Amino acid sequence: MEFKIRFMPDDKEVTVIQGTNLKDAANLAGIQLKSSCGGAGTCGKCKVELAGKSVLACKTAVNQDMEITIPLDSRLSEHKVLVDNQSDVKDVLAGYQFNPIVRKLNLTLTEPTLEDNTSDLSRLLTQLRKEFNVDNAKINLANFVNIGPILREKNYQVTVTLVHLGDFSEIVDIEAGHSEKPPYGIALDIGTTTIAVNLIDLNNGNILDRLGTYNTQAQYGDDVISRIIYADESADNLKKLQELVINTTNKLIREMLKKHSLISKDISVMIAAGNTTMTHLFLGVSPKYLRLEPYIPAVTTLPPVKAKDLKIAMNSEGYIIMYPSVASYVGGDIVSGALVTGIDRQENITLFIDIGTNGEMVLGNQDWLVTCACSAGPSFEGRGISNGMRAMSGAIEKVEINPENLDIKLSVVGNVPPIGICGSGLIDVLAKMNKAGIINRTGKFNDLQNKRIRVVEGEPQYILAFKEESGNGKDIVVSESDVKNLIRSKGAVYAGIRSMLDMVQLSEEDIETVIIAGGFGNYLHINDAIEIGLLPDIPREKYKFVGNSSLKGAHLALISQEAFAQATPLAEKMTYLELSVGNSFFDQYVSALFLPHTDLSLFPTVA
Amino acid sequence: MEFKIRFMPDDKEVTVIQGTNLKDAANLAGIQLKSSCGGAGTCGKCKVELAGKSVLACKTAVNQDMEITIPLDSRLSEHKVLVDNQSDVKDVLAGYQFNPIVRKLNLTLTEPTLEDNTSDLSRLLTQLRKEFNVDNAKINLANFVNIGPILREKNYQVTVTLVHLGDFSEIVDIEAGHSEKPPYGIALDIGTTTIAVNLIDLNNGNILDRLGTYNTQAQYGDDVISRIIYADESADNLKKLQELVINTTNKLIREMLKKHSLISKDISVMIAAGNTTMTHLFLGVSPKYLRLEPYIPAVTTLPPVKAKDLKIAMNSEGYIIMYPSVASYVGGDIVSGALVTGIDRQENITLFIDIGTNGEMVLGNQDWLVTCACSAGPSFEGRGISNGMRAMSGAIEKVEINPENLDIKLSVVGNVPPIGICGSGLIDVLAKMNKAGIINRTGKFNDLQNKRIRVVEGEPQYILAFKEESGNGKDIVVSESDVKNLIRSKGAVYAGIRSMLDMVQLSEEDIETVIIAGGFGNYLHINDAIEIGLLPDIPREKYKFVGNSSLKGAHLALISQEAFAQATPLAEKMTYLELSVGNSFFDQYVSALFLPHTDLSLFPTVA
Repeated sequence: MEFKIRFMPDDKEVTVIQGTNLKDAANLAGIQLKSSCGGAGTCGKCKVELAGKSVLACKTAVNQDMEITIPLDSRLSEHKVLVDNQSDVKDVLAGYQFNPIVRKLNLTLTEPTLEDNTSDLSRLLTQLRKEFNVDNAKINLANFVNIGPILREKNYQVTVTLVHLGDFSEIVDIEAGHSEKPPYGIALDIGTTTIAVNLIDLNNGNILDRLGTYNTQAQYGDDVISRIIYADESADNLKKLQELVINTTNKLIREMLKKHSLISKDISVMIAAGNTTMTHLFLGVSPKYLRLEPYIPAVTTLPPVKAKDLKIAMNSEGYIIMYPSVASYVGGDIVSGALVTGIDRQENITLFIDIGTNGEMVLGNQDWLVTCACSAGPSFEGRGISNGMRAMSGAIEKVEINPENLDIKLSVVGNVPPIGICGSGLIDVLAKMNKAGIINRTGKFNDLQNKRIRVVEGEPQYILAFKEESGNGKDIVVSESDVKNLIRSKGAVYAGIRSMLDMVQLSEEDIETVIIAGGFGNYLHINDAIEIGLLPDIPREKYKFVGNSSLKGAHLALISQEAFAQATPLAEKMTYLELSVGNSFFDQYVSALFLPHTDLSLFPTVA
Repeated sequence: MEFKIRFMPDDKEVTVIQGTNLKDAANLAGIQLKSSCGGAGTCGKCKVELAGKSVLACKTAVNQDMEITIPLDSRLSEHKVLVDNQSDVKDVLAGYQFNPIVRKLNLTLTEPTLEDNTSDLSRLLTQLRKEFNVDNAKINLANFVNIGPILREKNYQVTVTLVHLGDFSEIVDIEAGHSEKPPYGIALDIGTTTIAVNLIDLNNGNILDRLGTYNTQAQYGDDVISRIIYADESADNLKKLQELVINTTNKLIREMLKKHSLISKDISVMIAAGNTTMTHLFLGVSPKYLRLEPYIPAVTTLPPVKAKDLKIAMNSEGYIIMYPSVASYVGGDIVSGALVTGIDRQENITLFIDIGTNGEMVLGNQDWLVTCACSAGPSFEGRGISNGMRAMSGAIEKVEINPENLDIKLSVVGNVPPIGICGSGLIDVLAKMNKAGIINRTGKFNDLQNKRIRVVEGEPQYILAFKEESGNGKDIVVSESDVKNLIRSKGAVYAGIRSMLDMVQLSEEDIETVIIAGGFGNYLHINDAIEIGLLPDIPREKYKFVGNSSLKGAHLALISQEAFAQATPLAEKMTYLELSVGNSFFDQYVSALFLPHTDLSLFPTVA
C-alpha cells in the first residue's frame, strides 16, 4: 500500500509504502531532520506536526495520506535541503520581461444586427484586434465549432484563451462570460531518472504547486543508452517508453489539478525540457541514430505539438513546447538551464555544468558558447560502485580519515547507521583516501597493513564501516575498482572542461563563474571535487549552485515570451564539441586519470 | 442489387439498380440517346458499345458493373449534355497562373558526418530552403516522428509533400526515395441536393476523374431551412447530418482512389465549396443562427481544417479548405463561382445567377460587387408542383401549344412517354399557356371550354398529357396553384435582380453579361425565362452558361494559389443585400407577380 506525504512549508510531496517512518519520508523529499539518537526515538529532535500534534518523525509510521509540518529547529541544516529558488518569480525571470505565453482575455462584443451581420467568428476576431491589438490569431475547428451558442450564452461576453507561440498566436479556448480564472501552465523537467512538474499561475508567474516522481522508464534501463537500445528493438518498445513517461506526467498533472479544483482544459501550455533522448522518447520519435556515429538527432528545434497529439491531460487544443536540443548528448535541459542562468547574456565567462550520468557542460559568454557532453558514467550517482547509493537516509556523505591508523569518522545522511555511500560521499572518500595514503595518485592501493584494508578475490578494499556498525549488517567498502571507476568519471568531466578551454584557447583562470546544476550538484562539496581533480582549482567563491535549472528554465519560458524566443537562437549559438573525434579530449582524459591530475600545476592549491 | 455503369468517352459514372436499361442509365448520367421508337427497340438509333459489341441501349438491362462507349451518332443533341468545360485547364484557370496548392519535391540531402551533425529535420529544412527557396515550412509531429529511418531508407533521397496555404506552408508527408507520383487534390461541391467530386492531378491540373451522387442529408429535408431545423433539434442530429455528408464524400473519394490505384495518403488537399448551411453542416458547426434574425453565420472565412479532424479519406495531416461565405444565404459556392467566372476582374458589369432552391446572384465588376439571395422556392427544381420532376428521362422539357384548340406537342427527355415536367419545361409551359390565353397575366386561368382544361376540387388545371399518353398511367397536368407557385418563384428571382440594380442605381441595359450557373441553368431556355419575366429582357447573346461553377472554382483553387488568395478578398468585397429588410425588394416582388411584369416597358421584346 502506498501513501502520499506532503511536507509543509516546503510544499513537497513524496509517495512511500505503508510503514515507512516520517523521517525517511522527509529524507526522500530532500528534507533532512535532526537526529542525535539515530532514530531510536530517545533524543526528541525530529519533532514534526501531524494533524496539529507534535510527533517524533523517526517513530511515526505512515499508515495513510498525511500532511506534515516541519518546524525550523527540527531541520538538520540548510545545506542539505535541495536548493530551490524557484518560488521567486523575479529570480526566475532573471531580467527578462514578465509576458506569459498564455493570456485569458475578456471581450464584450457588440450584438449583431441586420445591418451588422458579420459572422460570429469575424466579430470575435475583430474585437480581439480592436481591444488587444491581436492580429491574425489562428483558431482550430474544435474551438469555433460551438461559437454560436457560446457568444449568446452570456449576451456576447466571452473569455478567449490565447497562446502566443512566436510566429503565431492561437485561440485555444472560448468560454461564455468573463472568466476570472487565471491561465495556467505546466513546467516539466523530463529527467532520465526523475520527472518534475510545476503548476504555474500565469497571471502572476508564481508556482502554485510542484510534484516530482521517478521516471518509470528506468525499468528498461538506468541510462539513456540502454533506453535507446530498448526502444530500437521494436516499435512497441518505443511506444511503451513513450507511454510510461506520458502516463507519469499525466498522473502528476491530474494530482495537482484535483488538489486545486482545476480541470485539464484550464491548462493551455506545457513547456518541457529534457535531454535529447528523453525528448525523443516523450514525442515517440525513434532515438536510434542518437547513439550511432555520427550521432544524429531526428530533431533538435521542435515545432509546437498539440496536446491531443500526445494525449497530455490538458486542453486538447493547447500546446506542448519542448526546449530545443543542441545535439545528441546536449539536450533541451541544458539549453533551458543555460537560458535561465543567463550565461549567454554576460560579459564574463561562465562554466555551466550538469553532472549526472553524463556530464554536460557549457562554456562561454554573450559572444560565444561551447558545449560538450562527456560520458561520466553512473558512478557519481552511486551506481557501478560496490556500496553506492543515492543521497538518502543512510548514505555516507562525508568522512574524516585519521592518516595514522586509517580510522574513519562518518557523516551519514539522517544520522543513522550507514548503508552505503552517495555521490558526494564518494568524492570525499576518494579525496581523503588519497590524502591518507591509502591509495596513490593513480588510484592504486598502497601496500598497507591495517584492519580496515583487506584483499578480497585479489582486489584490495578499504572498509568504511564494519558490518557491526552498518545499518544493513554488511561491510561498507570502497574497492580498488570503485576508485578506478570514480577516477575515470572525474577524469572524463575534467577532460571535457579542458577540451572546451583548449578549443577556445583559454585557461581555468579565465572562468569567472562556475554554475553547478542538477540534483547531484546540490550535495557536492566543492573542495573535495577540486581535490580529486573533478573541478578546476579556482577560487571556491566562483562556484554557485542553481538546483534544477532545467525545470526553472521551463518555468521561465512560460512566463516570458521574450525569454523563450531566445531558446532556439541560444541552442544554435552553442558550438557543439564532439569529444569522440578530432580534438584534445583523449589526451586530456588520459592526463586526468591521476589524483588530481598528471600536471600538478593545474591544481596549485591541492599540490 | 446496384451496379456501376461508366459511360465513355464522357467518363461519367452512375449507380443504378439491376434491370435498369442502359438508356435510362445514360440519361441519369446526363447523356441523352437518340430514340425514335420511344424505347420499343425497333428504330435502332440508341446503339452503344458494350464489351466490344454493339447493343441497343433501350433493350439492354443492367446485370453487372459495365463500361459503355457511346458513339457520336447515337447522341441526341449537344444541348442536352451537361455543359462541362472543366477538362480544359486553361479554361478553369481563367487567366490565373498555374501554381498548385500542393507540390511534391524531390530532395537529395548530404549525408551527415561528425563534422556536419545537424538533426535530420534541420537537414531536410535546410535543403528545402536551398533548393526550392521554401522558408519556415511548418511540420507536425506525425510527419517527423519517423524521419530518421525515412531519410536513411534510400540514402538521403526523399520526397517532401508541401502544402501552400497562403500565410504558411506545411510539410504534410515525407517519403523515402524520389517519388514520381504527382500530388493529387480533391475539388468538392457540397450541394443541398447533390455532391460532386473531381480528382485532380496537380502536376498538370487535369481532372483525372469525376463522380457525383445525391446528398443523403436530403432524407432530413429537401431545403436548407428544414435541415437547419433538424440540426437544431439535438447535437446528435447535427452530428448525423455531418456524418451523412462526410460519409458520402468519402465513398466517392474511395471509389476514385480504388479505380486509379491510389491510397488516401496520396491526397493532401481538398477544396470544398458549398452554400453557408452546407459548409456549417460539413464542419459540424451549428447552423442554428443562420435562420434566426439577424441571420448570423458562425463563420464565413474558414481556417484550414486538418483532414483528421473531419475524418476525410485522405492524408490525415492534409488540409480541407472551404471557400469563404459572404452571409447566411450567400455561400462559398457563390464565391467559388464568382471567382472562376472572373466577374471581379472585368470592367463590364456582369450578373452571375445561380437558381436552385434559392436564387443567389452577384452583380458587379472589378470595382464593386453586390450580392443577394432570394427564396425562389423549390418549384424550378420540380418540387411543390403537381407533376414536377428533375430533368431525367420522361420529363417534359419543352411544349408547343396550338392557341386554336389548345392541343399540345411535347418534347420529352429521352423521347419516351412523359411522366412529369422538369424546371425548364415548367418555364416553357408557363410562357406558352400565357401566350395561348389559357392563363392571364396574373396566372389566373381564363374561363375556357376545352377537353384539356378541367376543374378538380374547385381548381382549374391544364392537361399536358392524358393518362393514355403518359408513361405512368396518370394525367400530367399544370394546375392554377402550380402556376401561382411558379410566378412567385420567378417573381422572387427577378425582384432580387431588380433590388440589386436599384441599390447601385443601374438598369437592365447596363448588364453586359449574364452568367447562368448550376444544374438547372444548363437546361434553361433563355427565351422562355425572359417571356415569363424570370430573367431581364436584354439581348439573348449576353447570356452564358457556366455549368457547376462551384465545383469549377474548387478546381481552380487547387491549381492556382494566386486565384485562391483572392477568394477571401472577393467574399469581403461583395456587399450583401439582405432582401428581408429596408430596401425595394418587397415592392419589386409584388410588381413581378405578373407575366412577365406589371411594368411591360421592362420587357419590350415580350410586350
